[in-house]
Formats: sequence, C-alpha cells, structure tokens
Amino acid sequence: MPKSAIITIGNEILLGRTLNTNLAWLASELALLGLPVEFSLTVKDEAEAIRQALKQAWDCCEVVITTGGLGPTEDDITKREIASFFGAELRFDEEVWEHVQKLFAARNIATPRINRCQALVPDGFRALPNERGTAPGLFFEQGDKSFFAFAGVPLEMRHVFDAQARALLIGKYGSGEAIHQVTLHSFGISESALAEILAGFAPPHEVNMAWLPQTGRVDLRFYGMDRQRVSETADTCLELIRPYVWGRNEDTPAEVIKNLLRDNKLTLSAAESCTGGLLQKMVTDPPGASDIFVGGVVSYANTLKQSLLKVNPDTISKYGAVSEECALEMAAGIKNLTESQTAISITGVAGPDGGTPQKPVGTVCFGFSILNRLWSLTQTFSGDRESIRHKAAEFALLHLIKHLQGTKI
Amino acid sequence: MPKSAIITIGNEILLGRTLNTNLAWLASELALLGLPVEFSLTVKDEAEAIRQALKQAWDCCEVVITTGGLGPTEDDITKREIASFFGAELRFDEEVWEHVQKLFAARNIATPRINRCQALVPDGFRALPNERGTAPGLFFEQGDKSFFAFAGVPLEMRHVFDAQARALLIGKYGSGEAIHQVTLHSFGISESALAEILAGFAPPHEVNMAWLPQTGRVDLRFYGMDRQRVSETADTCLELIRPYVWGRNEDTPAEVIKNLLRDNKLTLSAAESCTGGLLQKMVTDPPGASDIFVGGVVSYANTLKQSLLKVNPDTISKYGAVSEECALEMAAGIKNLTESQTAISITGVAGPDGGTPQKPVGTVCFGFSILNRLWSLTQTFSGDRESIRHKAAEFALLHLIKHLQGTKI
Repeated sequence: MPKSAIITIGNEILLGRTLNTNLAWLASELALLGLPVEFSLTVKDEAEAIRQALKQAWDCCEVVITTGGLGPTEDDITKREIASFFGAELRFDEEVWEHVQKLFAARNIATPRINRCQALVPDGFRALPNERGTAPGLFFEQGDKSFFAFAGVPLEMRHVFDAQARALLIGKYGSGEAIHQVTLHSFGISESALAEILAGFAPPHEVNMAWLPQTGRVDLRFYGMDRQRVSETADTCLELIRPYVWGRNEDTPAEVIKNLLRDNKLTLSAAESCTGGLLQKMVTDPPGASDIFVGGVVSYANTLKQSLLKVNPDTISKYGAVSEECALEMAAGIKNLTESQTAISITGVAGPDGGTPQKPVGTVCFGFSILNRLWSLTQTFSGDRESIRHKAAEFALLHLIKHLQGTKI
Repeated sequence: MPKSAIITIGNEILLGRTLNTNLAWLASELALLGLPVEFSLTVKDEAEAIRQALKQAWDCCEVVITTGGLGPTEDDITKREIASFFGAELRFDEEVWEHVQKLFAARNIATPRINRCQALVPDGFRALPNERGTAPGLFFEQGDKSFFAFAGVPLEMRHVFDAQARALLIGKYGSGEAIHQVTLHSFGISESALAEILAGFAPPHEVNMAWLPQTGRVDLRFYGMDRQRVSETADTCLELIRPYVWGRNEDTPAEVIKNLLRDNKLTLSAAESCTGGLLQKMVTDPPGASDIFVGGVVSYANTLKQSLLKVNPDTISKYGAVSEECALEMAAGIKNLTESQTAISITGVAGPDGGTPQKPVGTVCFGFSILNRLWSLTQTFSGDRESIRHKAAEFALLHLIKHLQGTKI
C-alpha cells in the first residue's frame, strides 16, 4: 500500500500560536483514499529544515504533501526550496498571474506588486488553481511518487485538495485499497471500566482496535483493510457495551439529537447561563437544525432568568442561581416561552471565579424536559473555564440523547 | 540556546481523527521558557516508528518531549519503547500504584487490574504525579539533555507540565533566554494590502517578522531575543497600520470588547439567528464577561423573532428574515428586552441549503446599536457552514470593536 507523509511548514506552528488543523483534515482524506499517513513533520520556515524534511519524506513515502509557506510575503521561502530540492527552475506562469489579477479585480483592488511571486511555478510542476486565494497549489510526479504543496490557510488548502488533488491521487493510486474504520462513541463510563467489560474481547488479527479517550468520554475505533471484518468486529463489541454507546463514526451529539428529535417529531429549546450559548451553537452546527431547534435564551444576568424565563426571585435568593431548583424553573420557562416539546437548561460555575465551598468551580446544574417530564441533576466537571463549559454542554446533549434512546444514564 | 523537539505518538492523529492540540500548547510554553521547538514529529503507535523518532529528536535537541501512548489499554507501547531506547528496565513503582488506586477509590470503583501497568516506570526515570489521571508523566536526564513523556489527554498533559515539568526545565536551563514576541491583530484589510502599506518598512536584523493570515484577518508577529528591539519594532509598525489594528498579543475579540465596554460602563446583549449562539458563546469565553454581557436570544425560528424580539411580521414577509430591515428590528428588540446599552444582531444564510440568487449562502445581515445609534450592514462570507458562522460572529465583534475604538471600518 502506498504511504503518505505530511510536512507542515511554519514557525507559527512551532511557536504554538497556530493549531495545525491541516494535518487532521489531510490525514483523514488520505486514509479514506487508502494512502495512510506514515508520519508527519512540522518544521520551521528555514531553507535547511525544509530541505531535510523533503528528503526524509520523499525517501520513504509515495505521496508527500507540504502545507504552508506559499503566501506573497517575504517569510515564505517554501517554493524556492521545493524547486531547488527537485532541481527545477522557477518560471513565471501567465495563467496563474491572470488568475491572481482577476481575484483582486473582483474586489476592485489593483493587484499589489508583491503578489507577482505567486505566479512563479517550478519547471515541470503543474499549478493547481486556487479559487479561494492567490497561492496556487503545486503538483509534481516522478515514477510512482507524487508531490503536492498547498497554501497553509485551511480553507484554501481544502479547496485545492477537493477541486484538484483528490482526483489526481485517485487517478494514480486508485481508491480501492482504502482503510475501513468504524468508531463507537461511548458516554458515562471510564476507559478502564470499559476495558474491564471488554477484557475477554479480542479483535481478529486483521482488525486493529484503538482506544481514544476524549474529554469526558471514550471512543473505540476498529480499522483494517477488510471492510466486512471491521464491521463485524465493531458490531460484536457494540453488543457488549451497548448501554454506553450513543453513536458511531462521524456522529456528533448534535447530529444524533437532531435525528432522534426529528424521528419523534419533537422540537427543542434551551436556556443557558454559564455555557453562554455554546449548547445552542452545538445544536445548530449540523445543517437542518431548524427542523428541530426553535431557539432559546442566554440568561447570563439573573434579571433575564426572571424577566424572560419566569424564574421565581425567591428560588434564586433561597437556593442560588446555580441550583437544581433554578435549573428546573429555567427548563420549564424556556419550554413555555418557545412552545417546544423538549428543553435543556444549564446553570453553573464555569470559573475561574465564583466558586464556593458548597458549589466549587465546575459545579453545573441541569434541567431537562421531554413532553410532560421534567427533571434535574448536578454534575461537577474538572478543568479550566473552556473545558468546563464544553463538558457541560456536551454532557447535556449526551444525557438527553440517552433519555431519547430510552437508556437512562 | 537549547532546542526542543516534540514527538506526538498516536495512530488516531495520523488517521486524522484527533486534532493535535498538545503541540500548540507545549510549543507555546517551551517558547516562553526560551526552549523553542526546532521540529515536531507525529508517528504511529509502532515500536520501530517510536524508536526512530526518539533517535532523530535525541540526536539534535536538548529537550525531547513525547505525548500520547501512556494509557492502560493494549495499544499503548510507548513506555516499553522509551525504556528500551534509553536502555532501562521497567520497574513497578509502589507510589504510583498507590496513587492510581486512590484515584479509583475516590470514585468508589475498585482499580481495574489493567491499570497495574501504569505503575511501571523505567529505571532511572522519575515518575511525575498526575492528579488528573492514572498515567504519570516520566522524566529522565542525561548531561545537558532532558526527556519527558506525557499522557496524550490534553488536560492531563497540561496538568503534569504545569505542576512538575516547567519547574524542572527552569531549574535546568534557566528562563532568561526566552524569545520575546509581539503580535498585532489586524482587521478589514487583506494581507497584500497590508504588505503594500508596509513595503518600505523593514524590521532590524535581530527582529523576525511573520505574516500570519487568519480566517478573515491577518496577524503580524515580531519576535527575537531582544525584548526592547522587538517591542520598538512592533510599535513602529503599529503607527503605520493603526486604523486596521484591533488588538495585540493574547487579545481576543471577546477580551477587547469586554474591556472597551467595561471602560465605558456599557452592557451588551445579542440576538442571533444563523450563528445559533456562537457570538454569545464567544462573548462569554473570557472570565468576567458578566460585567458587560447581560444575555440574549437565539431566535432560530421566525416565530421567536416576532414573539420575543418584536420583529414586525410584515418586515419578514416583505424583506425576508435575512435582511438588514429584520436585523435592525432584532437589534432594537433585544436591546429593549434586556435593557442593555449596546446590542448586536445577526441573521444570515449559513448553508449549505437556503441560499437564493439574491441571497446566496454566506449572506449575513448585521444590526448594531450603541446607545441611541442603530445601524445595519450586509457581508458575504465564503466557506462552509462552520466557517461562515465563525466569520460572521467574529466580524460582528470586530466591527463593534472598531466603532467603540472610534475608528469606523
């Protein structure tokens, strides 16, 4: 099976200022094409580092991809080093130059002179048009090997891959040898406890099994070349841990909840305090969320809890805004206000301040309602503010999912 | 200056299923300690790949850090390979074992037998206690070199680094040689147009300048060993592009808006449709957001725009829900409902469906209000649903910032 290597070029990634989302995206696409990534290197915007990385990758992999360093500004030396590594001269490509000028014309701006260098293409390379930006992709082949260079801006890289590179790769390597994978998403059980349940379970030799602890939950992945064996193995495992599994593969909590509510012809609303809109943002991530999501309120100030959600001021003064009593009234209030059939409410201490001995940072109270049922619970989450907010919103969705699936966690 | 290398171990990252957030976090911490990351490698959970990566990193860097592969489940072979690479035997560490048992006891669970392997520590290594999980960090030194291994779960890795590793690194390498950096965040101008303005500007030899195109905006970074020169260079640049700069360094749109509103004793509310709560989530990301943010509404269904925000049904039927007319009424409505002094409203077509020739996917209408001023505008954003939503929410914040800063974009 041909192998791939991904080289990320950019000081900003090694300074920790930019998250390398390109690697995850490309790696996932390459795995689907049966061109699994063997290793990935991140190096500086420096000639020697780029040269060494190209050598290391080109020596052992059939497909080598670089991202980053193709912009018009002066720190971008990638193209020069690529040309030199492959022994090619840089030539001025009139077509690319026209395209760059057209992009600027569309914005009623004269093309800055600095962008002329973006029309330089190493001899023997093909420029891959980039409709989303001024830096074209670059493509070169030699025997059974392929080389691609993409701009570092994720949107542009993905666009050039989607529009050009994928077809080139399929044309050259086929797409029949893909890795098949099935992922099971669990909730409400620790990695070790899952491992205990699965102690007697061993996947067959040709199927790999990976444990992927996520924040607050664990995923199990099965993968290999034999689609049927992978799928059977995942199904066998699923039977053992079904009460803890809420989804598989690309499922997100929001997608699963959308489908469950749509199937049951139910709508959802939400009232959020400490999560500040995150739950509703997650619910509306999937296209078509409007089929099931009516809307909601971010009642950050207590006055809004009272005026909009009709939370009783006495409830807040007696039990506090972070209390199951308040969460229950918030859930009932938003359901009433929006005339939805299901509702979620969240009120908690996301920190870093605001904690007390009774309600330390991380304490979050939830209210839930499905039709005429209304209930509440309290959870304590660890981590920083961002992590607590994320865990709380995800917990709320997964908890409602387990109830809609008829399995109580 | 001592150099670092980071090795990420995990098939799930090379399959593109997990985003490597550990690299960005660690790289940023190491840069602050004057131990810049020279390169980073991501390799599979395979003995040979781990061995080669350890060799490549240990050969050329003073500080080598691995993340991943220290869990209790069977795919975790990292520890064995580390021990073998450094020629150490694995010994059973009673203290670590006690700690693992204590963690399980706190959750009223008997310690699963599978976790015994987590108490194995290579001879000559120090186990670094991990209060957040069962896998301790590992530390080894040889001459001027240091080796660390951390669990891959970000929360655990960060905790062990914060609690133990940082102090060990400062003790060994000092912290005086740190890289100083200043970042300027721009908005409302393209990379090329910025480059034109800065055509005659050249940083001094000892200061590096990097162009960091973000989604929808550009950052400029200045860095080097001489704090004063870095700072002066950034200030000189700032003078040239001041109208386009909304923040510096760690500033986020939400932090900047919080400070501007707090300084002016103003509060904010928001009414969101297509962004589904994302804007309010961003506004409440910083601690202390409650000083300036009252709350808001996610009026996903048109009925909520009418019932809660008092948008005139005629406005929607005449101009559509995605219109500046509707955005203006939403902004006025939420400001009135929450009694805030400033307000933002967003209504648009996030896609992938719902676009029309007049209002294609990516069309977003905004309403803004500061005290008695109320205005609207329309922008068209490219990209997928997630990207359009993110750009729209960030645009709204940055636009309000520029108005609060008194510079109109």
